[in-house]
Amino acid sequence: MDRNQLNQRLPDIVGAIVESVREEPRMQHLNGVQLPSRDVIIDSIKKLRQVLFPGYFGNRGVITTENVTFRIGELVIELADQLYGQVLCCLRYQKDLPGSPADAHASGANGDGMSAACAACERHAAQILSTFFDRIPAVRAMLAEDVQAAFDGDPAAQNTDETIFCYPGLLAISVQRVAHEFHMLGVPLLPRIMTEYAHSLTGIDIHPGAKLGRRLFIDHGTGVVIGETTEIGDNVKIYQGVTLGALAPGFGQALRGQKRHPTIEDEVTIYAGATILGGDTVIGRGATIGGNVFITSSVPPLTQVSGEPPKLKFRDRRPRSMRQPDFALDFQI
Amino acid sequence: MDRNQLNQRLPDIVGAIVESVREEPRMQHLNGVQLPSRDVIIDSIKKLRQVLFPGYFGNRGVITTENVTFRIGELVIELADQLYGQVLCCLRYQKDLPGSPADAHASGANGDGMSAACAACERHAAQILSTFFDRIPAVRAMLAEDVQAAFDGDPAAQNTDETIFCYPGLLAISVQRVAHEFHMLGVPLLPRIMTEYAHSLTGIDIHPGAKLGRRLFIDHGTGVVIGETTEIGDNVKIYQGVTLGALAPGFGQALRGQKRHPTIEDEVTIYAGATILGGDTVIGRGATIGGNVFITSSVPPLTQVSGEPPKLKFRDRRPRSMRQPDFALDFQI
Amino acid sequence: MDRNQLNQRLPDIVGAIVESVREEPRMQHLNGVQLPSRDVIIDSIKKLRQVLFPGYFGNRGVITTENVTFRIGELVIELADQLYGQVLCCLRYQKDLPGSPADAHASGANGDGMSAACAACERHAAQILSTFFDRIPAVRAMLAEDVQAAFDGDPAAQNTDETIFCYPGLLAISVQRVAHEFHMLGVPLLPRIMTEYAHSLTGIDIHPGAKLGRRLFIDHGTGVVIGETTEIGDNVKIYQGVTLGALAPGFGQALRGQKRHPTIEDEVTIYAGATILGGDTVIGRGATIGGNVFITSSVPPLTQVSGEPPKLKFRDRRPRSMRQPDFALDFQI
Repeated sequence: MDRNQLNQRLPDIVGAIVESVREEPRMQHLNGVQLPSRDVIIDSIKKLRQVLFPGYFGNRGVITTENVTFRIGELVIELADQLYGQVLCCLRYQKDLPGSPADAHASGANGDGMSAACAACERHAAQILSTFFDRIPAVRAMLAEDVQAAFDGDPAAQNTDETIFCYPGLLAISVQRVAHEFHMLGVPLLPRIMTEYAHSLTGIDIHPGAKLGRRLFIDHGTGVVIGETTEIGDNVKIYQGVTLGALAPGFGQALRGQKRHPTIEDEVTIYAGATILGGDTVIGRGATIGGNVFITSSVPPLTQVSGEPPKLKFRDRRPRSMRQPDFALDFQI
Repeated sequence: MDRNQLNQRLPDIVGAIVESVREEPRMQHLNGVQLPSRDVIIDSIKKLRQVLFPGYFGNRGVITTENVTFRIGELVIELADQLYGQVLCCLRYQKDLPGSPADAHASGANGDGMSAACAACERHAAQILSTFFDRIPAVRAMLAEDVQAAFDGDPAAQNTDETIFCYPGLLAISVQRVAHEFHMLGVPLLPRIMTEYAHSLTGIDIHPGAKLGRRLFIDHGTGVVIGETTEIGDNVKIYQGVTLGALAPGFGQALRGQKRHPTIEDEVTIYAGATILGGDTVIGRGATIGGNVFITSSVPPLTQVSGEPPKLKFRDRRPRSMRQPDFALDFQI
Repeated sequence: MDRNQLNQRLPDIVGAIVESVREEPRMQHLNGVQLPSRDVIIDSIKKLRQVLFPGYFGNRGVITTENVTFRIGELVIELADQLYGQVLCCLRYQKDLPGSPADAHASGANGDGMSAACAACERHAAQILSTFFDRIPAVRAMLAEDVQAAFDGDPAAQNTDETIFCYPGLLAISVQRVAHEFHMLGVPLLPRIMTEYAHSLTGIDIHPGAKLGRRLFIDHGTGVVIGETTEIGDNVKIYQGVTLGALAPGFGQALRGQKRHPTIEDEVTIYAGATILGGDTVIGRGATIGGNVFITSSVPPLTQVSGEPPKLKFRDRRPRSMRQPDFALDFQI
C-alpha cells in the first residue's frame, strides 16, 4: 500500500469509526449539552493563582500598590467570564442527566421546559460565582498559613517566597482549597477536573471533597492520595507516598456515600509511604505515624507509631578472607 | 565581567560546545535521518483522544449526529498526515541503525539503496497506518469496558463521563492501548514516546509491550509501574504505587528479551503499594493482593494475600499522669 | 441573582480581595523587585536540552555537521538573554531580602545604593552565566555516561537514543545537573524552579543541592525523592519510589544547614520503594538494598540487604471441597 491508497481508504475508515461511535453511548457525547472545557478550567486555575498570590505568577511585570487593583480587577473580570461559563456547562450537564429531577422539569412542552431550565441554571451559576468570589479572601487567609507551615516545616526552604514559587504540596493544596469551595456549592465535574490538574502536575491526588484543616504541609508529595471523605485537622504534616484511603475500595459503587477514609486529628505527622485506611480509623491528636507503616484502625492521641525494625538479611558479597566480624544494625526511627 | 564582555565570549563558548558535540556520538544526532518529533506525537495523542471519546475533549462545540462524521473525518485526515510522517521517521531511523539488515540493503550503489529503502519505508508506513486505523473501533470497544470498570470500581465516581474526563488511570490505559497497537506493528520509538507522555501526565508507567486484559481499572495510579513483559487478564483492579516488575532488573541488558515481569490472571485485585516481581510469578485467578505486600513467587487462584499485621511500637508522649491503660490495635485488613 | 447582578458586584469583590492582599505580606509581592519567571526558566530548560542533546529535541529539521554551529550559536545567544535576565532577577531578589548585607549596602543615600547594588548584580550575573556556559561541555560529558548507564541498565531499552528521547530518569538527572551548576554558583530560587519543573514532568524530586556521581541510572522514577544534602557515588542504580531522606524532617527549620540525608557510595543498587534516612547513614560501596526496605543506619560495603520475607496470611476463598493441599511460598529476592 502507498500513501495515496491510504488516503483512498480514509472514507471507509471514518465510516467504521463513526459506526462504532453510534453503537457505544458510554464513549461519546453527541447531541448533548456543551460539556465543560478542561482547557478553560485549567486556564482559570492559572489566573486564580495570580489572584491568590499577586506578583508571583504571570508575566505582567512588577505589581505595585498603585496597579494591584487594576491587575486583580482585570483577572476577576476574566475569571467571572470563564468560570460562569464553565459552571453553567456543569449545571446544564447535571440537569441533562437522565432521570435527574431537573431533567423531568426540563421536559416541558416543546422545549419551553428546557429553556426554563436554562434560565434557572444561569441564575444558579451567577449565585455560585458570587459566593465563590466572596470566599476568596478567606481562602487566601488559609493559604497564607499553609505557606508559613511549608516554610517552617522544611529546613531546605530559604524563605516563604520559595514555597509559593516551587513547592508542589502548596500548589496541590491551593487548587484543592479552591475546588473544595465549588464542591461545597454543589458544582459537578469542575472541582474534580481542577484537582486532577493539580494531581497531574504534582502527583498529589486530593479529592475535592476532602476536608483539610489549617496549616497543612505536604512535602515532596508524589504519590500522596487523600480520599473523598478524609477529614484532616490543623497543623498536620504529610510526606510523599502517604495514602489516606478506603479499607476495601475494591467493593466500588457499593460503598458510595459512606465515610470510607480516615480522620486525622490536629498536630499529627505522617511520614513517607505510610498507609492509613478506613472510615472508622481516627489518628489521635499529636500522634506521629512512622514511614511505611500500614494502619487500618485507630491510634490514640499523642502516640508514636512505627513499624518493628524489619529483620534484615545480610549477604556479605566479599571473599571470605576479606570479611569483617559480624555487625548489627539499629533501626530505631 | 559585564554583559558586553559576556556577549564577546559567546563565540568561544559556542565553539567549545560544538567541539564537545563532535566528540561524543552518544549525545548528538547529526547528519542522520529526521527523528520523530515528541511534540507532533503528543499532538496526535490529543487528536486520538477526540476520536476515541467524541464530544469530551477539544473545544469545537457540541458534536451532533449530523456533524460527527465531518468532525471524525477532519481528525482522521490530520492524524493520517501526522502519524504517517512520524511512523515514517521511526522506520527510516531503524533502517539507518548501524548493522541493521535494512541498512546493509540501503547501502546500495550511490544512494539508490537509500532511496529504495525509503520507498520501502513509505509503503510500510502506509500499511501500518491503514492497519492501525482499522483497529480503532476495536480499541474503542475495549476502552468502553474500561470506562465502565472505572465507574463500577470507584464509589467516588458520579457517572462514566466523570471517569472519561478526569481519571488518570483511564488516560494511561487509553494511551497504552493505542501505543500497544503500534508496538505490535513493529514501530520503534513512537510507542514508548506515547506511553512516557501518559506517564508524565499521570505517574502511571505502562510499557507499550505489556498485554492488558479487558475491563482494567487503575485507581489514582501515581507510581504504578507495569513492565514490558507483564500479562494482565480481565477484570483486574490495580491501585496507586503497584509495581509489576522484574526480579533483578539491576542485571540490565543481560535480561533482554526474557519474560521478566509477572502474569496476573482474571479477577485479581492488587491494593496500593504492592510489589509483584518476576517473570515466573503468576497471580492466580480471583486472588486479592493486600496493600504494600512484596511478592516474588506465584499465588494460587482465589487466594487472599496480606502482610502479617506489622507489630507496631507505641510511644505514649503524654506525661505519665495523663496516660490511659494500655490498648491493643487490630490490624486485620 | 443573574449575570448582570454578578457583574455589578465585581467591583466590591475586587475591593475585598485587594484589601486581603494588602493585609497579608506573605501572600503578595508588591512594589518589590521583578521576580524570576517560571515560564521563562522552563523555556530556557527546553533550549538547554537542545544544546545538551543536539538533533533530538525541537522541530528545526535535521542538524548537520555544517549547520550545528549555527544552531548551537542561535540557542546559546537566546539562552544568554533569558538566563542572564532570570539570574539577575534572582540576585536582585536576594539583595532585596530584608536584613541581607547587600540590602544594607543598597540602602545608600537616595537610591544611589540601589543603583550601585544593581550594577553589582549585573556584573555578578554576567560572571555566573560565563562560568555556567563554560561548564556545559563537562555537563555533557557526565550526561553521556548517564545515557550509557540508562541503556546498559534497562533490558527494555533498544538503544541509547531511546533513553534520550523517552526516559524520565535521564530528563530529571539532566535538569538537576544543570540546576546544580547554578546552585554551586550561589543563585537563589532558579535552581529549585528548574528541578521542580523536572519533578512535575517525571515524579522524580532531586534537590539542586544533591551531589550526584557519574553514570547514575534512575529507572521509572516516579516517587523518587533525593534530599538536599544527599551524596551519591558513581555507578549507582535507583528504582521508582526510593526515598533518600532526612530522619525526622518533621523538626523543620531546626535542622537547617545540617547534613540530613544519606551518603550512597559507588556501585550501589537501590530497588523500588526502599527508604534510606539520615545524614549519618552511609550505604557502603557495592551494597544492594532490596525493594521496600526501610533503613535508618549504615550498611557495610558489598552487603546485600533485604527484608525478612513477610509472613503472608492466605485466605482460600474457594469452597472447601475445591481446595488444594497447603502450599508454601518462597520469598527470596
